[in-house]
Amino acid sequence: MYLARVTGAVVATQKLAPLTGRRLLVVSRVGLDGEPLGATEDVALDPGLDAGPGDVVLVAKEGAVVASLLDVPGAPPTPANVVVTAVVDGWSSGPVDKSASRP
Amino acid sequence: MYLARVTGAVVATQKLAPLTGRRLLVVSRVGLDGEPLGATEDVALDPGLDAGPGDVVLVAKEGAVVASLLDVPGAPPTPANVVVTAVVDGWSSGPVDKSASRP
Amino acid sequence: MYLARVTGAVVATQKLAPLTGRRLLVVSRVGLDGEPLGATEDVALDPGLDAGPGDVVLVAKEGAVVASLLDVPGAPPTPANVVVTAVVDGWSSGPVDKSASRP
Amino acid sequence: MYLARVTGAVVATQKLAPLTGRRLLVVSRVGLDGEPLGATEDVALDPGLDAGPGDVVLVAKEGAVVASLLDVPGAPPTPANVVVTAVVDGWSSGPVDKSASRP
Amino acid sequence: MYLARVTGAVVATQKLAPLTGRRLLVVSRVGLDGEPLGATEDVALDPGLDAGPGDVVLVAKEGAVVASLLDVPGAPPTPANVVVTAVVDGWSSGPVDKSASRP
Repeated sequence: MYLARVTGAVVATQKLAPLTGRRLLVVSRVGLDGEPLGATEDVALDPGLDAGPGDVVLVAKEGAVVASLLDVPGAPPTPANVVVTAVVDGWSSGPVDKSASRP
Repeated sequence: MYLARVTGAVVATQKLAPLTGRRLLVVSRVGLDGEPLGATEDVALDPGLDAGPGDVVLVAKEGAVVASLLDVPGAPPTPANVVVTAVVDGWSSGPVDKSASRP
Repeated sequence: MYLARVTGAVVATQKLAPLTGRRLLVVSRVGLDGEPLGATEDVALDPGLDAGPGDVVLVAKEGAVVASLLDVPGAPPTPANVVVTAVVDGWSSGPVDKSASRP
Repeated sequence: MYLARVTGAVVATQKLAPLTGRRLLVVSRVGLDGEPLGATEDVALDPGLDAGPGDVVLVAKEGAVVASLLDVPGAPPTPANVVVTAVVDGWSSGPVDKSASRP
Repeated sequence: MYLARVTGAVVATQKLAPLTGRRLLVVSRVGLDGEPLGATEDVALDPGLDAGPGDVVLVAKEGAVVASLLDVPGAPPTPANVVVTAVVDGWSSGPVDKSASRP
């Protein structure tokens, strides 16, 4: 999973049925300083967290889990492989005291 | 998922049975300015959206979801891992006012 | 999925049981001009298309689909994640007239 | 799977339900000398190994397995694709005597 | 799948239960000349092929298949996504006579 900032949205009327009514966000991966890493933006599905422009979010990028998460029993699986799983409040990270690590 | 422009098609007569009758498109990833990023083209399966040359599409690149999406109950799974999920009408993206993001 | 040319084969007698009797091909990704891209070769399983040296093939690189495709009911899954799905006859690709794309 | 050092943690109150109560660690991939490789950090879920800052851990990065591992029967799948699978005590690696390899 | 040489092993006593008793190998991807490509090493699970230092092995890197392969019915899935599938005896690869490829 990675941290990303929401920077926009995608509009598509002609799409596979399971995507109907889902929000598609443009997300830009950020480093631990909150600044964009310059990587190409991904398009992520927001399953109902209502993330908006400027929010830092936690993005999971894969298939089976996302599909299962979004599936409605009996309906076809959701064809998305990038999803927003959390809106991030903050994070900590820094040099570690290796001598304090376990032997 | 990523944005890509359809630039061509692949022809193959000798293929695995579940691919019979499926269109295989050459897609070139584009940036938020709509211009090609210079990445190597992927070959994507169009499950019936009828995307054509020049269209910008939303591409999902993974396995389990695509397979499920395209499967016919009782038939072998579709051996494709790149699929077109939407024809894109437009998108928005830009610098965000970080002071407006949630605390 | 990507286009690749078959350039060789791998021999292994000591392998997991489900790979017994399967051909393992060395494949080299090519661009739309048919020339090698210089990427590191992958080893791909040929599920019976009988692709040979010099053939351009369509390669799918992932897990769940390939496994399902090759599985024999009741037997353990096939431990391969790169597979040849088609022998390619040809392809088209070129600059597109963006003014002709959908609004 | 890869070796990484735990360097921090992520805090998120607004998240998908299955992530509730799970620890989210910032992990930085390291080489065989134990030093950071300079790659962008990933965010990994700790399923109960209680790894802490300074620990070197074994990280698996994919979807279906992690989901299954963390799932509670009857509950929705866990939307995480990067997980800590072990706290590492040590490792060995070095040049190999190729003449000693099997013929 | 890719070719790699076994260069070492990882030791971890504090790990998820399904990894107990499994060997974790350090593998270094090699090119068709058998020399290391300089890529960062992966950690791969050996499901019983007994590969040792100096051996060239065929490595599959993904999730669902590996999990299924290693699972014991009724037990939790194995949290590994890189696995050794064969010990390689040899391989062939070289320039191909394109005029000999199928039309």
